[in-house]
Amino acid sequence: MTYVMKMSNLYAPTLKEDPAEADLVSHRLLLRAGMIRKMASGIYSYLPLAWRSLKKIEEIVRDEMDAIGAQECLLPILTDAELWRLSGRWDAYGPELMRIVDRHQRQFALGPTHEETVTDLVKNELASYRQLPVSLYQIQTKFRDEMRPRFGLMRGREFIMKDAYSFSATQASLQECYEDMKAAYGRICERCGLAALPVAADSGQIGGDTSVEYMALADSGEASLVYCDSCGFAADDEAASTRVSVTEGPGDGALERVSTPGLASIAEVAAHFDIPENATRKSLALIDGGGVPVVAIVAGDRELNEIKAGHLFGDYHLMDEEELAATGLHKGFIGPVGLPRGVRLVADESLRESERWVCGANEVDFHLTGACPGRDFEVDEWADLVTVVAGDPCPVCGEELSGARGIEVSQVFQLGTKYSLPMGATFTDEAGRTQPMLMGCYGVGISRTLAAVVEQHHDEAGIIWPVSVAPYEVSIVLLDTKLQACVAAGDRLAFELSAGGIDVVLDDRAERPGVKFADNDLMGFPYQIIVGKRGIAAGTVEIKDRATGERVDVALDDASNYAVERIRRARGVRFA
Amino acid sequence: MTYVMKMSNLYAPTLKEDPAEADLVSHRLLLRAGMIRKMASGIYSYLPLAWRSLKKIEEIVRDEMDAIGAQECLLPILTDAELWRLSGRWDAYGPELMRIVDRHQRQFALGPTHEETVTDLVKNELASYRQLPVSLYQIQTKFRDEMRPRFGLMRGREFIMKDAYSFSATQASLQECYEDMKAAYGRICERCGLAALPVAADSGQIGGDTSVEYMALADSGEASLVYCDSCGFAADDEAASTRVSVTEGPGDGALERVSTPGLASIAEVAAHFDIPENATRKSLALIDGGGVPVVAIVAGDRELNEIKAGHLFGDYHLMDEEELAATGLHKGFIGPVGLPRGVRLVADESLRESERWVCGANEVDFHLTGACPGRDFEVDEWADLVTVVAGDPCPVCGEELSGARGIEVSQVFQLGTKYSLPMGATFTDEAGRTQPMLMGCYGVGISRTLAAVVEQHHDEAGIIWPVSVAPYEVSIVLLDTKLQACVAAGDRLAFELSAGGIDVVLDDRAERPGVKFADNDLMGFPYQIIVGKRGIAAGTVEIKDRATGERVDVALDDASNYAVERIRRARGVRFA
Repeated sequence: MTYVMKMSNLYAPTLKEDPAEADLVSHRLLLRAGMIRKMASGIYSYLPLAWRSLKKIEEIVRDEMDAIGAQECLLPILTDAELWRLSGRWDAYGPELMRIVDRHQRQFALGPTHEETVTDLVKNELASYRQLPVSLYQIQTKFRDEMRPRFGLMRGREFIMKDAYSFSATQASLQECYEDMKAAYGRICERCGLAALPVAADSGQIGGDTSVEYMALADSGEASLVYCDSCGFAADDEAASTRVSVTEGPGDGALERVSTPGLASIAEVAAHFDIPENATRKSLALIDGGGVPVVAIVAGDRELNEIKAGHLFGDYHLMDEEELAATGLHKGFIGPVGLPRGVRLVADESLRESERWVCGANEVDFHLTGACPGRDFEVDEWADLVTVVAGDPCPVCGEELSGARGIEVSQVFQLGTKYSLPMGATFTDEAGRTQPMLMGCYGVGISRTLAAVVEQHHDEAGIIWPVSVAPYEVSIVLLDTKLQACVAAGDRLAFELSAGGIDVVLDDRAERPGVKFADNDLMGFPYQIIVGKRGIAAGTVEIKDRATGERVDVALDDASNYAVERIRRARGVRFA
Repeated sequence: MTYVMKMSNLYAPTLKEDPAEADLVSHRLLLRAGMIRKMASGIYSYLPLAWRSLKKIEEIVRDEMDAIGAQECLLPILTDAELWRLSGRWDAYGPELMRIVDRHQRQFALGPTHEETVTDLVKNELASYRQLPVSLYQIQTKFRDEMRPRFGLMRGREFIMKDAYSFSATQASLQECYEDMKAAYGRICERCGLAALPVAADSGQIGGDTSVEYMALADSGEASLVYCDSCGFAADDEAASTRVSVTEGPGDGALERVSTPGLASIAEVAAHFDIPENATRKSLALIDGGGVPVVAIVAGDRELNEIKAGHLFGDYHLMDEEELAATGLHKGFIGPVGLPRGVRLVADESLRESERWVCGANEVDFHLTGACPGRDFEVDEWADLVTVVAGDPCPVCGEELSGARGIEVSQVFQLGTKYSLPMGATFTDEAGRTQPMLMGCYGVGISRTLAAVVEQHHDEAGIIWPVSVAPYEVSIVLLDTKLQACVAAGDRLAFELSAGGIDVVLDDRAERPGVKFADNDLMGFPYQIIVGKRGIAAGTVEIKDRATGERVDVALDDASNYAVERIRRARGVRFA
């Protein structure tokens, strides 16, 4: 038995106008439908309608976690700085980690993720291989002090996450936990009504080697991904590697110094030599995390991938004018030949076989053609430096990759011993040896999933909730609240539906029909049962399917059964 | 359908020994049963068993809130300092308010309670009396940096609360919201299996005029309360007022100065004059919140009530030796006659009719007898200063009060306009006038309720969960995990029970029966179905009722029905 909510009581202050602060559809519609309100930058209150949907998402996540044997717990939000120091992340995390000092001057972080806390929790209490594997999860408010919080719930500073952690004795067991989670995450997306793709991902701040993200496909997504229609490969463009094709430069192979006065951009140089940009070489000067000057070279039409560069160069930055001058480099004319002493040269893997480079001459207003690695200069390191783009060959099958944009709603990681080793989370294996546990971690953005659902399910009039996560599954819209027969029909339907376990809201407000239709469409309840004077006189109501717009007249006596049947079918059940 | 948990997988690391850190039964048993672990002082992780019970408590609270029309939402944990400044609590709250600065140097508090946030949320969106009343609630982790966190979950720094807020247009409406909440709180206690008493309370940090606490009765409780068996009056001893009876001092009414060398304590003075302590007068010297020196006088056998003194004197403190000397007062010999200039004299209401005071003479080694207010000295203010104790007369009917100890599990407050006025939360009334909303606020300690349940439900062997909040309702204890018939019977029972909607755990561990019995008793599952070799051979299992200790043999074929029936009956339903 659920309680019937009357819309005259419902706290859902709708907005007629689009709020100026909101660019993204989900942000705009959640604000307009009276579902969220901003408290501070990146910090939102969830009003009753949003909270109902969030609870349904949480319940889907819980069900899938419980089904694979993960156990729910709740770890503290205040996480001890000592633990973060053990893992090395107190310093490494930077300003995104929100830090607080208690009245006794003890330092804590507001948990953005809980690897340290959970490892500390289990480390003395899972002692034997016989007790492993164990998977723990929690659904909790997390904190990350984003430099630029934006897009409403997409990138907030306080947000709701499901985070899970697995502890295994063997790599095979970790692999199994990881695969179970990955499969559960696919089902979670599907049950929430999200079209999502699992893609290979970078493991970022969390660490570890192997990682997959689920991307909800949406043009508004912040992430960009590539996928192969032919073999099914898919990856975050930050993580993918590919065999980038490169074009050779002009000439017969001899090194030539060419006057290129004022031609400091790739476009100008390519035009000057009448070659594609891909046949030129782009040189970027940077200072790596250890303070060493580096020149990184990629094909002229490619971008240096910041994530990959971060893995190679640590906390690097591009040189400013002053640093360029101090190093003896000339902006727009940097190249591999004749670099100042002490400058490390790193080049993209794709250029290894290329023998006629068009590149800066390390001299103002001059470029080189025919520069050949091994003959004219030595590369200190060949590395994967560029971002994969649509059109590149698939790294698996070689077919052309397609591109798409997506919202990262969940991610799974194999951490291995990254936390168990420094924190001393060990167990005794079958042979009696002490070993570090093998860990995995697994996150679902609960509040972000809510926003992603809206990105995928809306139209001009508002949100179109999938039944599984709708705040109310049915709204009963009374067109004439003064007509006793109307009111009685509404009460009857509300009673029947709630007795049938349907989440139902009764729009009993003394508003014009136009206002009611607009609000109900905006709030996006999957079915609207419209109770009007004429219909009631004929013993019928109209049932509108919000997604298709289809309207059918149904006898009042049959209306509840009609709705209950459709909703039960649409709710979705686990397909284990 | 619920999932069957196998105890071989369950993360519930039990402890054989009592942990040294835990004094309180609930703290000790929750630690020993592998339900909670301490992360830092006053900060705990809830392990899977505790979390299951907490969720059940939450669901009971949700159901009762929804039943009275309150709507669930979720407000941010990070609450803007600006809002706290508007209400004046940024300064008033003191070091218990945990404060944090973000990367842009903006100040926030980790919400200990959300009056400011919720008032700010609704203030521009509830504009008309037609939209009122509205009640919003949330279940959330709260923070309070207690000076001395203790007693496990009882007094933590991070804890789970349900907090609700009502907004009304009239006092009658506020009164109705308040009464609805109070009634719901009574049902919540009852459904959680708590014997609790609603008592008149002080409104403390939250403010407002009218407040009632629900006290779970327990000898270990931090709160002390008085109640009247005759008329039903009950109050927190900090909040209660009473007609304290006082005894007159000796003599014929004349003021006499008596040498009392070295007799600086009430006990010594009473002995010297051979009178009860109640016939003496106790003088306390303090500095009030405004820096004014005050002498407060109560009957010799009574204590100054700190809460009442706080209301009268603000942020006061008792004078130290130095302050006494500077004021011209002599420790042990302070009294109302001949006080130094500028010292305010406040005396307890109960002394107003008394005419022969035995008190200090404001001179070392001398006391007075027969001191008479109005004749020998003037009292600046008569006030209620003392803590009520068992034996005092009931303020309602005059019968003798009894005393008890309790755990404050919930509290309701009428706030009136305390927040709406300074924060500008107004509405337009029927006559078109702008009025501040009338607010109430209502809290339930969710994690504290868990601990209170354990305080009331345990024995030597461990916890005895009421069915309504048990982490699992039934445990199936396999005595012989190598015997196929045993294992098969366990699987069958687990399947039948979970299909019947019962939360069931299967103790399939390869442990000795003694270990299993001890663990199952410690964890406190209400029913244990014991599957043993001999029983199975005869087609029976033994069902143990954890609360009564009663054991019955039941045919294997009937065991599930037997348990399902008892559990469904014991779960409790709302009695609206």
